[in-house]
Amino acid sequence: MTPRDVDRPSDPSWISDGDGAHDRTLVETWLFQLRRERFRSRASGKVHDFFVAHLADGVHVIAVTGEQQVVLVRQFRAGPRRDCLETPGGLLEPGEDPCAAGARELLEETGYAGDPAERLGTLWPNPALLTMGITTIVIKNARRVAEPRPDPSEELAVELVPVQEIPALIQSGRIDHAVVVAGLLSWLMLEGARPSQAPRDRVSWNR
Amino acid sequence: MTPRDVDRPSDPSWISDGDGAHDRTLVETWLFQLRRERFRSRASGKVHDFFVAHLADGVHVIAVTGEQQVVLVRQFRAGPRRDCLETPGGLLEPGEDPCAAGARELLEETGYAGDPAERLGTLWPNPALLTMGITTIVIKNARRVAEPRPDPSEELAVELVPVQEIPALIQSGRIDHAVVVAGLLSWLMLEGARPSQAPRDRVSWNR
Repeated sequence: MTPRDVDRPSDPSWISDGDGAHDRTLVETWLFQLRRERFRSRASGKVHDFFVAHLADGVHVIAVTGEQQVVLVRQFRAGPRRDCLETPGGLLEPGEDPCAAGARELLEETGYAGDPAERLGTLWPNPALLTMGITTIVIKNARRVAEPRPDPSEELAVELVPVQEIPALIQSGRIDHAVVVAGLLSWLMLEGARPSQAPRDRVSWNR
Repeated sequence: MTPRDVDRPSDPSWISDGDGAHDRTLVETWLFQLRRERFRSRASGKVHDFFVAHLADGVHVIAVTGEQQVVLVRQFRAGPRRDCLETPGGLLEPGEDPCAAGARELLEETGYAGDPAERLGTLWPNPALLTMGITTIVIKNARRVAEPRPDPSEELAVELVPVQEIPALIQSGRIDHAVVVAGLLSWLMLEGARPSQAPRDRVSWNR
């Protein structure tokens, strides 16, 4: 086999410029630190100042009940100024494992718990600007075990959606959070590739 | 049919609080305006200050050649401090149509052009924090028509990847930008539902 370019791990094409003398913290809040950081291209030697928002990594949870329903939450999001239908999730505490954090967030936001979490993968919601990676985990046999105890600033509505309706909810734009869409579609394709667990027609689109 | 909760359009559960007297612009740059904005829950009356980064909407382009190869770009991203393999894209100029912007970005970044763009959908990379929606468009019969002319701060490597290798690149984490993953998987599922255009085995996973 001939190695192809996309298969070769490579060093970053830009690296931090020198001693950081040109880097600045623009604003610091309880949630993130917004910085301007200078990098230098290893190919051209050119320098450029990038904006970088440093914030904690996150986790999203695909929780599925024994009746093949996915546990979703609907909550207000200030970016689009409307409510979004999403998989439950949140930010990792310092040093926290994504699987532990996901089980914690699922319980807090929905009152559901289930089997030990399986890690699906980590995605970058906005790598041009945010240091944040979001890991998607899967928790099967989820069942309601407690009252939800969301954060004081969170007001969440829990909604159960049959697995087979997920593609249509994405296709119609009712689920449109990129990390949630990417996580759910990755999971459906993986499940679809194992016919004993999920029939292939789950991944077909209604158009 | 009984209307279900997830099918009902609904007003936002939180709305701007009063006259905006508590809203503050924390920092303003050429790229975005970072604000703290106060919203009030319509259900509980509770108020909360949300961080909101106002920036332009964006577009990503799934450009496919006549030989069924997808035109990708590899470039440095300051969030993860490494290079990312992505669909070409960028920010919309004020008032610009996403299809026009996508064709422009594709030409600038890769030198490719093709058929009139088809709009796939709009996703929110981080609705908790960013006002930005990113539209994914599809441009078929893409072919190289010019030299790339990227922005001064962009250094891009163009890579052609056969369509059938996309799922494995996502599965292995080599493509891990959430908007790119969500766009490519949505497109593959749509194509997979029309067997005359793409065989179903394109969406199976290698595991």
